[in-house]
Amino acid sequence: MKASVITIGDEILTGQTIDSNSAWIATRLNEIGISLEEIVSVSDKKEAILNTVERLRKSVSLIIITGGLGPTNDDITKKVLTDYAEDKLVIYPAILAKIEAFFASINRPFLESNRQQAMLPEKATIIENELGTASGMWFSVGETHIISLPGVPYEMKGLVDKLLPIFKERFSLADFYHQTINFQGIGESMLADEIKDMEEVCRNNSVSVAYLPSPGIVRLRLTGKIENRDFIQLQLAWLEHKFPKYIYGRENQTLQEVIGGILRSQSATLGTVESCTGGALAARIVTVPGSSDYFKGSIISYANELKVKLVHVSNSTLEDHGAVSRQTVEEMAHHGRSQLKTDYCIATSGIAGPDGGSDEKPVGTVWIAVATPAGVHSKLFHFKHNRERNIELSVVNALNFLRRELLQLDSPNL
Amino acid sequence: MKASVITIGDEILTGQTIDSNSAWIATRLNEIGISLEEIVSVSDKKEAILNTVERLRKSVSLIIITGGLGPTNDDITKKVLTDYAEDKLVIYPAILAKIEAFFASINRPFLESNRQQAMLPEKATIIENELGTASGMWFSVGETHIISLPGVPYEMKGLVDKLLPIFKERFSLADFYHQTINFQGIGESMLADEIKDMEEVCRNNSVSVAYLPSPGIVRLRLTGKIENRDFIQLQLAWLEHKFPKYIYGRENQTLQEVIGGILRSQSATLGTVESCTGGALAARIVTVPGSSDYFKGSIISYANELKVKLVHVSNSTLEDHGAVSRQTVEEMAHHGRSQLKTDYCIATSGIAGPDGGSDEKPVGTVWIAVATPAGVHSKLFHFKHNRERNIELSVVNALNFLRRELLQLDSPNL
Repeated sequence: MKASVITIGDEILTGQTIDSNSAWIATRLNEIGISLEEIVSVSDKKEAILNTVERLRKSVSLIIITGGLGPTNDDITKKVLTDYAEDKLVIYPAILAKIEAFFASINRPFLESNRQQAMLPEKATIIENELGTASGMWFSVGETHIISLPGVPYEMKGLVDKLLPIFKERFSLADFYHQTINFQGIGESMLADEIKDMEEVCRNNSVSVAYLPSPGIVRLRLTGKIENRDFIQLQLAWLEHKFPKYIYGRENQTLQEVIGGILRSQSATLGTVESCTGGALAARIVTVPGSSDYFKGSIISYANELKVKLVHVSNSTLEDHGAVSRQTVEEMAHHGRSQLKTDYCIATSGIAGPDGGSDEKPVGTVWIAVATPAGVHSKLFHFKHNRERNIELSVVNALNFLRRELLQLDSPNL
Repeated sequence: MKASVITIGDEILTGQTIDSNSAWIATRLNEIGISLEEIVSVSDKKEAILNTVERLRKSVSLIIITGGLGPTNDDITKKVLTDYAEDKLVIYPAILAKIEAFFASINRPFLESNRQQAMLPEKATIIENELGTASGMWFSVGETHIISLPGVPYEMKGLVDKLLPIFKERFSLADFYHQTINFQGIGESMLADEIKDMEEVCRNNSVSVAYLPSPGIVRLRLTGKIENRDFIQLQLAWLEHKFPKYIYGRENQTLQEVIGGILRSQSATLGTVESCTGGALAARIVTVPGSSDYFKGSIISYANELKVKLVHVSNSTLEDHGAVSRQTVEEMAHHGRSQLKTDYCIATSGIAGPDGGSDEKPVGTVWIAVATPAGVHSKLFHFKHNRERNIELSVVNALNFLRRELLQLDSPNL
């Protein structure tokens, strides 16, 4: 089944609000096999709304509209759609009573504009909103279902949750199956090259493959009918077997969550000693609720004197090799492990830019070391981006480096 | 002038990616007087792209398209638009050389799919992308300007920044005058209440006032014709006089940049000792290029034992008052200043959540202290949000607290 989403409101067209409602609706509809053909944002104007509805009706049978249902003057969606559906607005006494009770409960005066919220189309199906005063409305116009919902994300979500089981039943929807698998350390084009045969096999089995890249990370999403479940799982198992160093998880799992899980299972603790990442690595690790169970802390030794004073990197190492060197980063990780009294310690030292680069060590040169109970390993990276991105790439590569060490994926006997 | 934005990519229609590019583009176009009539997301299919372009051409003269320019098979935008513009793809040798050099510099093999990135339309204007391998393309089809940009936000933004001055010139746009002034520590509705008279005066002078809120921060943007410049500057001066504790800067200035500027002017140094923020405060400070001039480092003492061992908080303070207390956070800031050998030190200690709260100290309870050469001051905050937001609010409030201390805005004799 095909649907489209219309978001109404000038705040989106002026860029003041990012439309996150549509992505949320898209995800939920996809889960029950309704795919979106278009997401469109138009202004609060009658003709903009009507032209868009008329146009979308030609290609989809379900149109979900959010926004424009508030009590203020620029909220015209309800009136426009009611006229369009040749319906008329009437007072719904039960809804009026609920709204009056709501205003009484928060000690706010009940205004005429609030009373308008109980004026609803007579023939449409009303979807009651337990979380606010704007009801949802389901209009049937010919073969098209047009559903109007408030734009407040929290209220919209409550109404969509009520609608989904009704959609499944009413539209007799087949179940779809999606799986996402997450890679770090391999670029989109390299990955595409490595898995082109698998993509071909997927295509032949009507399973689609989508690439979802973000800095340092590529998420691969396979989508098919519910009957393809085993086929899709087989592809994922093959990928996991082939790319253990790159694949860190599935679905919405993050590197920091995966690492947290492994550390927890090993009852092991973690710390970081950071230079170029300046705390961004620690901050990423503690985004995970409960990370205090395994994360003990960090030393951000941005200045060299703190590398010596707090981390105990030797002065001679800094003098002989510089702060951005294998020797320094390995000492940072090694001594960091003792100073922070942790089982594992990640250290970073590099040149994030835009200044500080040289011919020998250009901007983007980053050393990362991981100290484990068994020893210290380090790697050199050359990121060629701006400061923000170089730091982000350092963080995700450092996390995956630790994951590989925790799982001994780089050990020569595997 | 009217424009529309098309976002191409199934990841948006399936809800896996929230389209934040369009809002960013809308904001920037609005600043130079180009307003959006529609924002539309369609799939990676030829007919979807063409139908949308054809349709939008009837009402706008500028169409900006993002996405679908990557090296993988599902990226078809370039081919479709080139055919539509009756143009043909040819190799641009200078761009090919740049892409080859880029891959060589990061030690990645150069694949056929990368070579495709240098195949570009012959007649279109190519907008070189310094931040990636997908160039921007400006097609002219009849009276319509169609501009295709990569979907990676960072690359798209770089290209739009290059395009804006060209748009102003080419489309002879009237000059608008915008000024943004940035507040921290006062909420949107409180601020609206405080400045309602000023808003009225602005309205009477055809100057619009927009609120741009983000966690802990409200940016206020005044927009008028170029003749309103003096009037707008007068309003801003009044605001700065009235709200010195809340206003930290103008335009795109960030708190961390403002603090960096003050520290630099005072030849002073800074460090942080973080518990609940877990490095996020240090990471924010080092987003500023050249911050190593004044930022020396941090101790992230997530575990209490590190508060004692590395920061020298006394065991008895921790036992008597707990980690989340005025006494502990003040000791963290005070001793942090000596341990890190800095002039200023910010300390944070709180309960980010979702677990760890109690009746006495619920989730969101955060103590922040600033140690200065003159002594230590601390404040208690009660943030009522989720973990991510509580950490973010701690960071921005800590930075503004330091700013107020640096400028002695809280001193009783001001």
